[in-house]
Amino acid sequence: MITVTEVNQMDYEQFIERFGNVVEHCPLVAGAVWASRPFADVNDMFECFGTFLDSLPYHGRQAVLRVHPDLAGRMAQQGVLTSESADEQRSAGLTDLTEEELQQVTERNQRYRAKFGFPFVVCARQNKKEAILSGLEQRLKSDDDDELRTGLAEVKKICCLRLLDIVDREGCEARL
Amino acid sequence: MITVTEVNQMDYEQFIERFGNVVEHCPLVAGAVWASRPFADVNDMFECFGTFLDSLPYHGRQAVLRVHPDLAGRMAQQGVLTSESADEQRSAGLTDLTEEELQQVTERNQRYRAKFGFPFVVCARQNKKEAILSGLEQRLKSDDDDELRTGLAEVKKICCLRLLDIVDREGCEARL
Repeated sequence: MITVTEVNQMDYEQFIERFGNVVEHCPLVAGAVWASRPFADVNDMFECFGTFLDSLPYHGRQAVLRVHPDLAGRMAQQGVLTSESADEQRSAGLTDLTEEELQQVTERNQRYRAKFGFPFVVCARQNKKEAILSGLEQRLKSDDDDELRTGLAEVKKICCLRLLDIVDREGCEARL
Repeated sequence: MITVTEVNQMDYEQFIERFGNVVEHCPLVAGAVWASRPFADVNDMFECFGTFLDSLPYHGRQAVLRVHPDLAGRMAQQGVLTSESADEQRSAGLTDLTEEELQQVTERNQRYRAKFGFPFVVCARQNKKEAILSGLEQRLKSDDDDELRTGLAEVKKICCLRLLDIVDREGCEARL
C-alpha cells in the first residue's frame, strides 16, 4: 500500500508502471490521468480515471473493452492473463467451472462477441460464477450503446478495486 | 507479410495481437482502429491509425508519448524494450553511443522530460544518432503544444513503418 502523497510524487514512468493496468491493457489511460495530479485521495484518482475513459471517442471506448480477455476464455486457459485478471477470475470461481459451465460460458462469450464486437466485461470480484453466467445471458439482449455503457461501468468498478489494492484510502470512503 | 484481405478477415483479438504495438504500448489504438475495417490497403490502415490518434483528447495525445521509452534510456540499457523499439534504436546507432554521447542524450532526455512531461519521441529508423542528438537539442526550444504535435507526427511515422513491416503494399504507394 502506498499513500496518495507518494503517488503525487511519482514521475510519469513510475506512475504508469504502478497504475498502467488498473484499466486492463490500457497504460495509455494511466499516462493520461497522470496529467491530473496532484490527487486529493484515491477517490479523486478514481474520478480521474473515469472522466478520462468517458472522454475517449466512441471507437476508443469500445477499444477499452476490446483489449479485455474473455472470462474463462482462451487466455485464461493458456495462463497468459495479467496477474490482476487471473486473480479476479479465480475469486469469482471461473477457474473452477464444470465441463457444462465452461461450455455455456464459451458459447455465450462467442455470441456476445459476434453481436457487439467486444468481449463481455464484468467486475468478477463482485460476482460469483452463477451470477456471471446468468448476467452474460441477460446482457446478450441489450442493444449496442447500452452494452457499451454497461461494459464501461464494469471497467470502472474493476479499476476502482485495483486502485484500492494499491493506494491507501486515507480517511476517504470508497464509492463502491 | 500479410495482405490487406487477410487483415480484413481478422477478428479483433487477432488484429490487436498483430497490430497492438504499431503504436508503442497502445493496443487500445489498434482496438479502436479495428472498428474501421474493411481497409482498402495499408495506406488506408495508416490513415485510420492517424485519425484515431488525432481524435484522442489532449491528455490522451500526451499519454501516447508518455508510454514511449526514452531513446537510449533506462529501458534500453536494461534490455526491456519492445522488440520493435529495440530494433529501431539499434538501426539509428543508439546502441552504439560513445560515453560522451550517452551522457549528452541522457542529460537532454532529462531536460526534455522535465520541460514537457513526456519523453522525446523520434522515428529512429529515419535518423542516425547524430541527427537525433541535435534534434533533441533543437526540440528542447519548442513550446508545449508544438512539441506535442511534433511528437505525435513522429509516432505516426513509426506507426507507418511498423505497418509496412506487417502488411503488403499491394500496389499502393506508401506515403512516407
